[in-house]
Amino acid sequence: MPTLQDWEQLALKELKTSDPDKLWRVNDTDIPVKALYTAKDLRDIGYEESYPGLSPFVRGPRASMYFNRPWTIRQYAGFSTAAESNRFYRESLASGQKGLSVAFDLATHRGYDSDHPRVAGDVGKAGVAIDSVEDMKRLFAGIPLKDVSVSMTMNGAVLPVLAAFIVAGEEQGVTQRQLRGTIQNDILKEYMVRNTYIFPPQPSMRIVGDVIEYCSQKLEQFNTVSISGYHMQEAGANAAIELAYTIGDGLEYVKLVTDRGIAVDSFAPRLSFFFGIGLNFLVEIAKLRAARYLWYHALQEFAPKNVKSSMLRVHCQTSGYSLTEQDPYNNVVRTTIEAMAAVLGGTQSLHTNALDEAIALPGEHSARIARNTQLILQEESDLTTTIDPFGGSYAMESLTHELIVKAKGLLAEVKDWGGMTKAIIAGIPKMRIEESSAKRQARIDSGAETIIGVNKYAVASNADDIDPLIIDNDAVMREQISGLEKLKQSRNASQVARALQRVENAARDTKSNLLQVSIEAMRVRATVGECTTALERVFGRHQSVTPSVSMVYGKQMQQSSHYQQALRKVEAFAKANGRRPRILVAKLGQDGHDRGAKVIAAGLSDLGFDVDIGPLFQSPKEAVKQAIDNDVHILGISSQAGSHRVLVPQLLLLLREQGAGDIRVVVGGVIPRIDYDNLKQLGVAAIFGPGSSIVDCAIELVDLIASDKKK
Amino acid sequence: MPTLQDWEQLALKELKTSDPDKLWRVNDTDIPVKALYTAKDLRDIGYEESYPGLSPFVRGPRASMYFNRPWTIRQYAGFSTAAESNRFYRESLASGQKGLSVAFDLATHRGYDSDHPRVAGDVGKAGVAIDSVEDMKRLFAGIPLKDVSVSMTMNGAVLPVLAAFIVAGEEQGVTQRQLRGTIQNDILKEYMVRNTYIFPPQPSMRIVGDVIEYCSQKLEQFNTVSISGYHMQEAGANAAIELAYTIGDGLEYVKLVTDRGIAVDSFAPRLSFFFGIGLNFLVEIAKLRAARYLWYHALQEFAPKNVKSSMLRVHCQTSGYSLTEQDPYNNVVRTTIEAMAAVLGGTQSLHTNALDEAIALPGEHSARIARNTQLILQEESDLTTTIDPFGGSYAMESLTHELIVKAKGLLAEVKDWGGMTKAIIAGIPKMRIEESSAKRQARIDSGAETIIGVNKYAVASNADDIDPLIIDNDAVMREQISGLEKLKQSRNASQVARALQRVENAARDTKSNLLQVSIEAMRVRATVGECTTALERVFGRHQSVTPSVSMVYGKQMQQSSHYQQALRKVEAFAKANGRRPRILVAKLGQDGHDRGAKVIAAGLSDLGFDVDIGPLFQSPKEAVKQAIDNDVHILGISSQAGSHRVLVPQLLLLLREQGAGDIRVVVGGVIPRIDYDNLKQLGVAAIFGPGSSIVDCAIELVDLIASDKKK
Repeated sequence: MPTLQDWEQLALKELKTSDPDKLWRVNDTDIPVKALYTAKDLRDIGYEESYPGLSPFVRGPRASMYFNRPWTIRQYAGFSTAAESNRFYRESLASGQKGLSVAFDLATHRGYDSDHPRVAGDVGKAGVAIDSVEDMKRLFAGIPLKDVSVSMTMNGAVLPVLAAFIVAGEEQGVTQRQLRGTIQNDILKEYMVRNTYIFPPQPSMRIVGDVIEYCSQKLEQFNTVSISGYHMQEAGANAAIELAYTIGDGLEYVKLVTDRGIAVDSFAPRLSFFFGIGLNFLVEIAKLRAARYLWYHALQEFAPKNVKSSMLRVHCQTSGYSLTEQDPYNNVVRTTIEAMAAVLGGTQSLHTNALDEAIALPGEHSARIARNTQLILQEESDLTTTIDPFGGSYAMESLTHELIVKAKGLLAEVKDWGGMTKAIIAGIPKMRIEESSAKRQARIDSGAETIIGVNKYAVASNADDIDPLIIDNDAVMREQISGLEKLKQSRNASQVARALQRVENAARDTKSNLLQVSIEAMRVRATVGECTTALERVFGRHQSVTPSVSMVYGKQMQQSSHYQQALRKVEAFAKANGRRPRILVAKLGQDGHDRGAKVIAAGLSDLGFDVDIGPLFQSPKEAVKQAIDNDVHILGISSQAGSHRVLVPQLLLLLREQGAGDIRVVVGGVIPRIDYDNLKQLGVAAIFGPGSSIVDCAIELVDLIASDKKK
Repeated sequence: MPTLQDWEQLALKELKTSDPDKLWRVNDTDIPVKALYTAKDLRDIGYEESYPGLSPFVRGPRASMYFNRPWTIRQYAGFSTAAESNRFYRESLASGQKGLSVAFDLATHRGYDSDHPRVAGDVGKAGVAIDSVEDMKRLFAGIPLKDVSVSMTMNGAVLPVLAAFIVAGEEQGVTQRQLRGTIQNDILKEYMVRNTYIFPPQPSMRIVGDVIEYCSQKLEQFNTVSISGYHMQEAGANAAIELAYTIGDGLEYVKLVTDRGIAVDSFAPRLSFFFGIGLNFLVEIAKLRAARYLWYHALQEFAPKNVKSSMLRVHCQTSGYSLTEQDPYNNVVRTTIEAMAAVLGGTQSLHTNALDEAIALPGEHSARIARNTQLILQEESDLTTTIDPFGGSYAMESLTHELIVKAKGLLAEVKDWGGMTKAIIAGIPKMRIEESSAKRQARIDSGAETIIGVNKYAVASNADDIDPLIIDNDAVMREQISGLEKLKQSRNASQVARALQRVENAARDTKSNLLQVSIEAMRVRATVGECTTALERVFGRHQSVTPSVSMVYGKQMQQSSHYQQALRKVEAFAKANGRRPRILVAKLGQDGHDRGAKVIAAGLSDLGFDVDIGPLFQSPKEAVKQAIDNDVHILGISSQAGSHRVLVPQLLLLLREQGAGDIRVVVGGVIPRIDYDNLKQLGVAAIFGPGSSIVDCAIELVDLIASDKKK
């Protein structure tokens, strides 16, 4: 019988080397992976068999898994008005979708009503605008909330939004006990990556606790937190970081609530998890298996008696970051690979991205293909028959173990920091994720990592093939504002004022439950914005300060001659002009997705630019002031959520009005092609879509301002 | 520690049953599959660990597999003229494809030159037209045959076509020893399923032997047979049948050559395999693993000394049959799932189908997405790092074992028949495959098996979105015919005549090598047709007779009320008209793909139609004569290869000329939507595309002829 040694000899011979280290490779999630795993690896890690539905749940949280019932197809969607989103939801349910997942617009996320001047560019854009119970009722008209489970991605404004949902159910005749679904309510990751917080960390944690406490008593079928690693992956975290910080966040919530003297078993079974699934197929499967193991063991500290308290249940979403604007049908392939990883990892529900999600909201055709991706897996493949088909696999059990070990290391560090909240306030996890992100961007820009159709086998862009869903922001805003006016005329003003006062009082009194008083306020038709303002009077609004990571990108790129060429170009500009090219990287409106802004700032800085980073949530006026004060050559706007259509024209006008028309404005991020001409006519000097190389950007920017100087 | 019994109890509880049999399911490849596999299953089957590159090769034929070099992206393509196909090949090589795979037109497959009257509808349609060495040289112009490996799907006309390839290489300055690639040369499966044979089985087997013998001496880097299960799967064979008959065919070829006294090690390392990969993800992976095991053990009978003799290497193609005309972008999802199965099964090269291949030849966009599917798997996922990631998996090792056992059973039967050749002459494997196909069609028509977008969640057809590649058959034929005329003027006629006489003499003399004399004939510019005619004078042309399978479809459908309704409708027609509806199911031209014709014939027959099946390869005139002689109500044409554009108009004209315009003509199969209007204007009464239910067809046909009677 041939032996493992025979294999190693033969493999090294085929690789034309005698160095056994050459049989290892470090993948882009920084995990060393071997060419071959064998029974010996399982012996080495002391592998023990386990069974699905039984602790430590590596093979799945339920004993019968998809053999009994497949995962829930739950597509995240929402846009424009509640009535429009309602129509879309009802069509999706008729076409095979099983649960709803609501995307709210950024105004709602940040607790502003649609008539607030700060949100002019954001209303109805990347999600549905919800100002009050009336909007929530329209959102679910004709959708029986006692039958359809609803997931809501809401963190900052969780109190008024969840309250409005509960009241909408109430007015459909559905009791709180009957409501099924999930509220994201995961504020910790907002400070790390997504930035749609409202209040500072401490009061925000109290809100999380109040929601968990209230729901665990009243909404028994509701998942009270969706502890989310997804946004960390989107922001550039590798698998081990995503895994560790997510479990860390979960532990922080459990501590928060048990510290109130509440028994772990009364709420822990209703905590759920949310992971992103990228293209590292084996690693992503292992991640879900490892997550269940880690959660089971971590929870033992709290001595749960109910087995469900330590049973990790998860929703997954395929990676938006892995999608490309270029050659968009490639995205169907990527999403299918990722969906399969989620399924083989044993997810409980899944969102598959639409092929045009790199650039716009999904249209009808692309939304159907995304949903069909899951239906085909469920109904045409054999993946629902066999539970955890990778169970026992030498490679999979080894990778699962490896991720457990890596994550445990990171979790031990978190413990040293004094828990996630403290680490986050110190800005450490955010920095780690940004480093990971800059490293990956450098790998792509240097060609070490391939993206088909972008940095290899690129084709002339055919994004035009796709008809993106463009929201008529003006019309939505007009409709929302007229709805608000009507609401304010018809409600009992003094009743509302008293309810809002009770909310404010409760904010001061940690013994009160903030969700309870929010429900009362929403019931009498207070608005999301009013309820938030009442809380803000006590808690204030959070301002984050985050430095940029330095020389992570540059270090990875040093070997690239293209990078060296850009460096020389910047040097030459600095010599000729007596100062370096200076850019303000700004984000406008309520869009907190700052991976793009951070990575471009880090890259340009390494390339020798003077880089200023604007604070999040600037208005056009604030950005213009900062640009003029800092005497920049370039004002770069990073836009991910569609507000560029409204806010960039305003910004250009303001610059000209203040005599600073010579500052070049460039735009980067998620910009549909059909907006390009219009933006350029208005005066935008350059547009950088997803997949742009930072080195290319740098060269183009220097050329741009150098030619200005010559004129 | 929880035990397996704990799991079973919990699972049964979740399934609300006490019957342990409910934890099994029989999948659509007739394999019983369990909900959960555990270490106990591996103990029960006496599982032994093995290593890639070492016998019995379950984990892969090479020790370093994709860790060293990924599989070869080899897209099967060819259409129109050699010059057109050449342009396509060169673009594909520039866009990341690594090897070529040539599709020939059906005229070439069947040994007819492009000017033969029988092939008027087929020239250049489903592949490239090759009449002589001149065409072959054009096909590879600018493509260095010493660097690029070329796979050729050629069986019937293997002698002149392979000869022309060798001469084309010679005239590029490439020696026979330098040529790399594969010739399909697998005649046995042609009699079972694909029907592009020319001669009867016995002389055909001699040709296979002559090719293997010649190449094993002269073309050392060439795979001399590609033993193909792919076409069995396409024709409806389940995984075990495909596996067993393919291995059976392989053994037959090994016997054929060793019986000539040739040492197994001198040719067996150059036998390669070809499997289809459908949507049963786990089963398809297991199939490739089982195939390597079976081939290794089967070859031991021949006592090979070279380890490569028993090492199965395989090319895979994703399933064309699994694709749908409806909602064609779903096909990208299906093909991705299948491609992943091929990769996880350890394929050496892969063809991924384009999304429009259910209905037409791939266009530029769809060909790119198909190729990118593989590039994304190779370059963006982590699947090339870890060898056989499923190795050791309880489920995968159990399924691999199960397929080995099933296939061994079928192979034992083959042995009882006296080997594959004898079984095929008796028509037994063909019958088995047709039964499997009728059973599957019934599962789909009854809704027991789901196809998204076809029998569930159907949308209004948007096949129009796709711009199919339509070949201008007339132009191709004119160009080929003028090429033939020029060739015949410029060559030395008496030299050609002498060479063809030598081919004919060699056919009579089993000591001569037919490939040797074919090369000599092609070198002096004999044509494919002339060379075939010379052989045909000795061997004759094969005529197959195959009965239709009865009551396989009907038995599966009995529970369907829709089926019962159709039955009643046919009965009513029979009563009203004194005879049953009668249909001739015909195939025109050189298209031998008869799965569709056979399954519709079997289904309609079970539904009470009188069904005549025309012999393969009818001309329109022959089909019209048979229809009139048999006094049918309906003449149904099954078309898979694009010749309907030429042959159906001819057929309609002939019917009218002979006063039989009252016979209704319907067309089924692969018909691009843009042809529908034209066919209907010409007089076609109905068109049934892929995904049509036989029950629906039956009802429509009876309605059609019943309304005729009323007029």
